[in-house]
Formats: sequence, structure tokens, C-alpha cells
Amino acid sequence: MDGALAVHVERNLSDYLEQRRAGMAEMAPSFGSAVESLAAFVLGGGKRIRPTFAWWAWRGAGGAGSGPEAEAVLRAVSALELIQACALVHDDLMDDSAVRRGKPTVHVEFAARHRERGWLGTPERFGAAAAILLGDLALAWADDMYVSAELPADRRAAALVPWQAMRAEMLAGQYLDVLTQAKGDESAAASLSVARMKTAAYTVERPLHMGAALAGADERLVAALRAFGADIGLAFQLRDDLLGMYGDTDVTGKPAGDDLREGKRTLLMSIGLGKADAAGRATDAALMRSALGNDNLDSATVERTRELLVDLGAVAEVECRIGELTESAMRALGGVDLAEPAGDVLAGLAVSATKRAS
Amino acid sequence: MDGALAVHVERNLSDYLEQRRAGMAEMAPSFGSAVESLAAFVLGGGKRIRPTFAWWAWRGAGGAGSGPEAEAVLRAVSALELIQACALVHDDLMDDSAVRRGKPTVHVEFAARHRERGWLGTPERFGAAAAILLGDLALAWADDMYVSAELPADRRAAALVPWQAMRAEMLAGQYLDVLTQAKGDESAAASLSVARMKTAAYTVERPLHMGAALAGADERLVAALRAFGADIGLAFQLRDDLLGMYGDTDVTGKPAGDDLREGKRTLLMSIGLGKADAAGRATDAALMRSALGNDNLDSATVERTRELLVDLGAVAEVECRIGELTESAMRALGGVDLAEPAGDVLAGLAVSATKRAS
Repeated sequence: MDGALAVHVERNLSDYLEQRRAGMAEMAPSFGSAVESLAAFVLGGGKRIRPTFAWWAWRGAGGAGSGPEAEAVLRAVSALELIQACALVHDDLMDDSAVRRGKPTVHVEFAARHRERGWLGTPERFGAAAAILLGDLALAWADDMYVSAELPADRRAAALVPWQAMRAEMLAGQYLDVLTQAKGDESAAASLSVARMKTAAYTVERPLHMGAALAGADERLVAALRAFGADIGLAFQLRDDLLGMYGDTDVTGKPAGDDLREGKRTLLMSIGLGKADAAGRATDAALMRSALGNDNLDSATVERTRELLVDLGAVAEVECRIGELTESAMRALGGVDLAEPAGDVLAGLAVSATKRAS
Repeated sequence: MDGALAVHVERNLSDYLEQRRAGMAEMAPSFGSAVESLAAFVLGGGKRIRPTFAWWAWRGAGGAGSGPEAEAVLRAVSALELIQACALVHDDLMDDSAVRRGKPTVHVEFAARHRERGWLGTPERFGAAAAILLGDLALAWADDMYVSAELPADRRAAALVPWQAMRAEMLAGQYLDVLTQAKGDESAAASLSVARMKTAAYTVERPLHMGAALAGADERLVAALRAFGADIGLAFQLRDDLLGMYGDTDVTGKPAGDDLREGKRTLLMSIGLGKADAAGRATDAALMRSALGNDNLDSATVERTRELLVDLGAVAEVECRIGELTESAMRALGGVDLAEPAGDVLAGLAVSATKRAS
């Protein structure tokens, strides 16, 4: 399975969703059609990062690359994508984002359906309800798909720890993110705490933990993989923040400046504001603060904020942190013996996660 | 445990939520405080209907009333209340209901917190985000609590069927409810289909199915309990619809006329509209249609609609259906041998669920 992992993950998701969709469609055809939208969303893109990290931790801890055990693990780690589907569908609704992966977000799609058919009530409320319910369904089905994997009882029990932690950490991270924006908390501590929970733990550390637990790895190996994951995950988020400001919309599928418009308190902005204040550049600081969370942000202000963050050295500092985190992650990885090719693959994933362009 | 079942359910929920809250609070204190609101919501009321039906099916199928096995089953069936917490928190948000059990709903509580502290952004958006995330957390923790029950593997596997079906049916029912309202579908078929999934299956039939499966009941007993549950559940919903129009606000904790204001397509309204049309009472039909889904509904129109539904015979017809459903449910129950006192208790629950005042 090593070779075309994303394809195998997608096959698993597609099989599982089709089986559940058929069950629902029989009972309630119109809900079956809503489930099709969820399935299209899940299968319509995404980098399958979480299953990939989990799979390679499994392989690194000595898990088989094929056969029935590997198939069961593949199914369990593929279920991570359904947690992520819930996170994205609900996050897009909370942020009122219109576009995801170059397509309308779920609440926007259902609002459009309502509008086209001239239904009663407001399209927005219908779209929100559909997004809430389909996100819930993805979360419930994540658990269902996970338990459908035929794992030995002791391995299932061990992997339950990261599985449960990960869902709670994702939601805690989302809540802290919303709260930090509401409070207008500009501190580096606040942005790091969101990034640690929402991305480092949920996206990298816990999937690695889960893969290692599924393979029955000892504590030392689990600890090393988690340390690697925590650092790479944070670096991944810092890269994401940079892409949110400087990424190519055609590549990221997200309008540039969206993070700014939404008022995301990233470490990048926190450092930029801190440096502007420290240097007494009140006009620059005021411009950046006015941009954060401004729904009617114009492209000139986005552009000027971009320039300022470079000029103030905030971009360089974030790049430097990404470098440091990658290094310490590599040290953690180097301190343990992993079954090859997993060590090389994880190192490669670390590099691509932190140097990527999308 | 038979005697003070609700107390035992609440002790289980309280222990479980406190343990999870403490874990979160350590990691992220501000999320810990949000979790307190969720715990207060879960522990602040509710009739514990689903655990009660599940428990008595377990007892009726021969399950023990105390001891370690009974404790494990109690924990598993208590987890049903966390699914229900998700359903209520998200439903209140979708309907924009302000009050639940005489207290502000979760999204309203968090919006108020935002408003009081003068945070950035709109209070409504913050309240919505908190309600989405806390509902998600309740749904994730429902599964976590369920798997924490130390059940024999074969019983766990058997109970997984209703457990998984129930979550999907609840969400399908909610979606059909929203869709039926949006389409303005007045048919009896549409309102019955919502009621069958959202209430009959999710609230009564599947909890009974789960309790029976936990006890290793044979197919015949499972089928009889499910048939009983499907009828009682539907009758329960029809009673709920009547209470939504005629209930005492002090007793139900919900403003009278809320169902009307929200545009709920109940069987009661469907029959009322059908009878008004059939009798050529165009003015009456128009008045009732104008009331359905009217945000600015005045109390005189609520009162007039109430009178019309009585006058048209819709109330009598719904009462008659409740009676028929209760009878057929009792026949299903009478056809199998249940360990006493479960048979009597289930019969009693059926009566109180369909004759209740709140």
C-alpha cells in the first residue's frame, strides 16, 4: 500500500461512504442526496495528511505494508479524513468561507440549492442547517468507520487513546481559535496555543501516535514520534500562515488575504504587530490592526500588510522558526530506529509539509 | 438500579463529563470553561427517556439489575444522553430557539457572554461557533463514553448496530425536518416520515433495540420491542406536537406556539390544513398557513390557530391516532415474554410518554 497511499485511502473512504449512503437513501431518499454532497466533499480533494502520517508511523513501528492487518489499519487511519471533513465543513460555516478547494463550501452549496428552488425561509439558514448536520454525520461516521476496522483488541485499545484525544484537541483548538479572535488577543502565546492544538496535535502528533499504537510500539518510540510530530505540526501551521498571506490562490484554492479578513491571530501577525509597536511604527501597526478581521478589506491593504510583514522581519522570523522546528523534529526522529523506508518517508513528509507551496 | 434510574444515569454522565473536563482544562483552561457550560446543559434537565427505554429493554431481556454487568450497561445507555445533547444544542442553533428547559440555549448563552465582554465580531457568530463546537464535542464524547463501558465483545458488537443506526437516523430526521419546512411540504406523509425517523426510531425504537442487544436477546424479542418502540415513538411525537400547540409553557419550558413560529410541519397541522381545504374554509386555511413559519407571529393568531385545529377536528384525529398507536404497541409488547417488572414498566412508560403534559 506504501506506493499509492492516497489512492488506497480514497478507495476506503469511497467504499465506506457508498455503503452508508445506500443505507440512508433506502430509508430517506432526500437525505441520501444530501449524503452525496458530503461524499463528494470528502472525495473531492485534500492531501490525506493525517492518514499518511498515521500510516507511516505504523510502518515505521514495524507494521506490515500489505495483507489483512495492513488493510484493517488502512481503514482505521482513513477514518481520520471523516473527522477532518467535519472540522472543515463546520469551520467553513463558522468563518462563513465561500470557497474550499476551489469549490463552493457545503453551506454555500446548500444555500444556493435553496435559492434556486425558491424554497421557504432564508437560503443562509438552510445552508447552515445542512452544513451542521452533514458535519455531524461525518463525525459520527468517523467513529463508525474506525470501529469497522478489524483490529486486534489490544491494538484497538491502545489506539483509542490518540483517537479520542485527537477529536477533543481538534475541537478545543477550533474553540481557542474563535475565542482568540473574539478577544483580539495578539499575543504569540495565544496563536501558538491554537496552532499546537489545532494543527500540531490534531494533524501530525496524534495521527503518528495512533499509527504507532496500532503497531504496538513501545513508549520510547511513541514518545519520539510524538515529539517529531509536535514540532513538524507546528512548523506546518506556520507554513500555512505564510501561505495564507503569500500563497498563490490557484495553488492553495483559497483567496489570498482570507486569514487576514477572518481576523486569524497567526504567529506571523503577532510577531509583525510586536515588531511594529517596538519600533514605534504606529501608522504601520494601525494599518495592520485595521486589516485584521475587516470584512471589507481591499486588495491594496492586503498588499501593504504583506509588504509590512516582510519589511518588519516577521516573515524572516517565522521562516527561521520553521527551520528550527524542522531541525528539532529531525533530531527526535533520528534518535529512534524505524523500519525503513518509513524513516526516510517521514523525514520527506516533514520537509514537504514545511516547505510546501499549497 | 431500577429504582432511581435517572439518578444513576446522571451520576454516570456527571462522572464522565468531569473526568473529560478536567483533562481539557489542564490543556486549555478556557476550553475547560466552555466544557462546563456543556456539562451544565447535559446535567441541567431532561427526562432521560432514551437511557430509560434502553435500560428496561435490557432488564426485560433478562439483564441484571445490579452488579458489574449492569453498571457497564448503565454507562453505555447513559451515553445516549450525549447524542441527545448534540442534537438539542445544534437543533436550537438551527431553529434559533432562545430558550430550552427554561434557560437560555447554548448559542444564546455564549452570544451573551460575548456581548457582555464587548469582544470583537458579532455576538451571534461567536454564539453559533461555540454551539457548533460544543455539540460536536458532545457527539464525539458520546462515542467515547459508549466504548468506555466494559461490555463483552459479542454484546458490544450486537449493540453497535442500533447505536450506529440511531445517530444516522437522528441526523437524517433533522435534515428531513429542515427540508420539509423549506419546501413547505404540508403532506401527512412528510410529517410522518420526519416523526418516524427523528422520534420513533431515534428516541424509542433504537434505544430499546440497543438494550435488548446488550442483553443478547433473540431476534423475535428484538423485533417485538422494536415494533412496540416504533409505535410508541410515533405516538410520543404526536403528543409532543399537541403539547407544542396546547402545552403549558411553565410545564414544557418552551414558549407555546414555537412550533408554529418555526414552521414545523406536524401531522396536526397537516390534518388541520387538509380538513380546512376539504371543507372549503379558505379563510381559515389561509390564516393557518400564514401562521406557519411566521417569525412575527402574534398571540391572537396562535390562539385562533389553536381554536381552528380543535374546531376542524384535527386535534381529535391526532388523539385518536395516539390511541391506536398505543394499542398496537401494547399488542406487540404482549406477544413476548419479558422478565418482570420490565413488561409492566415499559407499558407504564408507553402510557406516560403518550399521555404526558410536558
